[in-house]
Amino acid sequence: MRTALVIGTGLIGTSAALALAQRGVVVHLTDHDPGQARTAAALGAGTDAEPEGPVDLAIVAAPPAHVAGVLADAMRRGVARGYLDVASVKGGPRRELEALGLDLSAYIGSHPMSGREKSGPLAATGDLFEGRPWVLTPTRDTDTEVLNLALELVSHCRAVPVVMDADAHDRAVALVSHMPHLVSSMVAARLEHAEEAAVRLCGQGIRDVTRIAASDPGMWIDILSANPGPVADLLTDVAADLEETVRSLRSLQSSDDVKRRAGADGVQDVLRRGNAGQVRVPGKHGAAPRAYEVVAVLIDDQPGQLARIFADAGQAGVNIEDVRIEHATGQQAGLVQLMVEPKSAVVLSSALRERGWAIRQ
Amino acid sequence: MRTALVIGTGLIGTSAALALAQRGVVVHLTDHDPGQARTAAALGAGTDAEPEGPVDLAIVAAPPAHVAGVLADAMRRGVARGYLDVASVKGGPRRELEALGLDLSAYIGSHPMSGREKSGPLAATGDLFEGRPWVLTPTRDTDTEVLNLALELVSHCRAVPVVMDADAHDRAVALVSHMPHLVSSMVAARLEHAEEAAVRLCGQGIRDVTRIAASDPGMWIDILSANPGPVADLLTDVAADLEETVRSLRSLQSSDDVKRRAGADGVQDVLRRGNAGQVRVPGKHGAAPRAYEVVAVLIDDQPGQLARIFADAGQAGVNIEDVRIEHATGQQAGLVQLMVEPKSAVVLSSALRERGWAIRQ
Repeated sequence: MRTALVIGTGLIGTSAALALAQRGVVVHLTDHDPGQARTAAALGAGTDAEPEGPVDLAIVAAPPAHVAGVLADAMRRGVARGYLDVASVKGGPRRELEALGLDLSAYIGSHPMSGREKSGPLAATGDLFEGRPWVLTPTRDTDTEVLNLALELVSHCRAVPVVMDADAHDRAVALVSHMPHLVSSMVAARLEHAEEAAVRLCGQGIRDVTRIAASDPGMWIDILSANPGPVADLLTDVAADLEETVRSLRSLQSSDDVKRRAGADGVQDVLRRGNAGQVRVPGKHGAAPRAYEVVAVLIDDQPGQLARIFADAGQAGVNIEDVRIEHATGQQAGLVQLMVEPKSAVVLSSALRERGWAIRQ
Repeated sequence: MRTALVIGTGLIGTSAALALAQRGVVVHLTDHDPGQARTAAALGAGTDAEPEGPVDLAIVAAPPAHVAGVLADAMRRGVARGYLDVASVKGGPRRELEALGLDLSAYIGSHPMSGREKSGPLAATGDLFEGRPWVLTPTRDTDTEVLNLALELVSHCRAVPVVMDADAHDRAVALVSHMPHLVSSMVAARLEHAEEAAVRLCGQGIRDVTRIAASDPGMWIDILSANPGPVADLLTDVAADLEETVRSLRSLQSSDDVKRRAGADGVQDVLRRGNAGQVRVPGKHGAAPRAYEVVAVLIDDQPGQLARIFADAGQAGVNIEDVRIEHATGQQAGLVQLMVEPKSAVVLSSALRERGWAIRQ
């Protein structure tokens, strides 16, 4: 790939442009707001001058609802050898393009799985996609040359290519992102009018479950509007589990032993299935979650406490695999949980203890 | 408080005993398994010899289903001036005691809000409760002297006393712990039979939502069996939101503009209520979540990377308030998000950049 045209210079478009430009590709930038394209160019993402002839790859980075229209326009003008979009849903745009009667052999749908809280070209960075999955949805009609251009883009962005069917992609993101997002919102919604005394009892569990409920509703309406079917199907499955679980809990209130036992079995079933699903969530590096040992250290809130812990761990030659900080309600103190390889736990505990840390094991 | 009797020397009982013993209280230990009491005594939690007369406070640390029986027995034998239990539900045990016709003026129900993955006396530690809420559920009939004994226990354990009505407590823990736990299990359960390609796309969002679904079903059956009513009520509320949201998503699939707009409004409503509930989750130190700035640093997986970052941050005089580590699928690289006070973000970024770190801002 020698030349590219990025159509839409928001966060994703500009980040891809930056990565390509850093690898020596000549990148042309355009946006329905010319100011945005100029900003992206000023950041080193390419030039906002029009290309003189067709480029190798046109990258359409427009919101889901506009992707098909922008792609169709670009294809009719013949601005590139290959066309790719980066929208977060893949089935709808493809069907819209098919309905327009376009030859889609030069088109490939894609979705880089990386988001940020911020948007716009100023939030862009050439390493946004580094190490993240980038889904490609070629069909049997996709030119091999176009698939290879897409793979080159993914490689330049240092992302991990994952090939999927467009509709399978939409069901997958409904499963791992859209459905959990809405469920997180529904759990958080229960706190809106809760008593202050109850809210004070919140711990790390509910904090984790509701974290993503803090996201911007506007952006999520766009995402969910483009993928309502698969999300509704999954929520219907969750609703069936919910109903069954409510029934089991009501049986647990019964004075009849047989009913109570059936209730306990029902609750146990959903907890067990939860266990079975949770172990499938990829842990670090996409591998099966490894069993780390936790070394828990009590800290107060003085500046530099964490720094000192990590420095001390480093001097003990121990690699911290993950960290969790649990803060206490109403107290200037907290617990830092350091996740380490089992063989390192004893080394780390004694090294930290020697240096005066309060270790809980 | 000069003397105490801990009945049930598992994790909670032994941890409380350790805290009291460390503050000079003479602690007697007993358990239905005498070996457990001996182990607790060997750890320095007190003596497994019987007290010669009534102690100041008897602490019953038995599973919810056995609490009322153990308490009734202790009260009939008159082993203490005051009686307290630490079970995770409070309404049921109180009603059982009332049904036995006992005078409850010397009894106070309580619940220290601190759990661990491990159980048994060997996992106990005198600082288990440090900085955590410890709910007390006195009634108008509770002797002031007994309330003060309980407050002294909480103080010795360095926990934060929170006074609540017993049934309000049970509804509160259903809200902030039991309901979210079951919902997390239901989201995780959707992954049990999901295709491998879909599971590979999991990111930090679903990882957080499903983390607590990894817990031991046996322990959770005990907890949920003791509090089925309030949990069922809350799940019923979630089910109503779910149904409404499925209806909204189906409207978004409609070709009718009016219907689609109504669907978007419905989805927006649940997302907004999720926002409103999420901001109430106490952040650090139980205060309203503070707005931290995030400084994101790319690391590879060499040992000591985190240690170096924290050491460098410490030398720049910046206090890291929280940390999140996001690992990339299939890659030996990750992103460390350092949460700092807004005024410190620029200082930290430039200090780290100077020392050669790749900062994403």
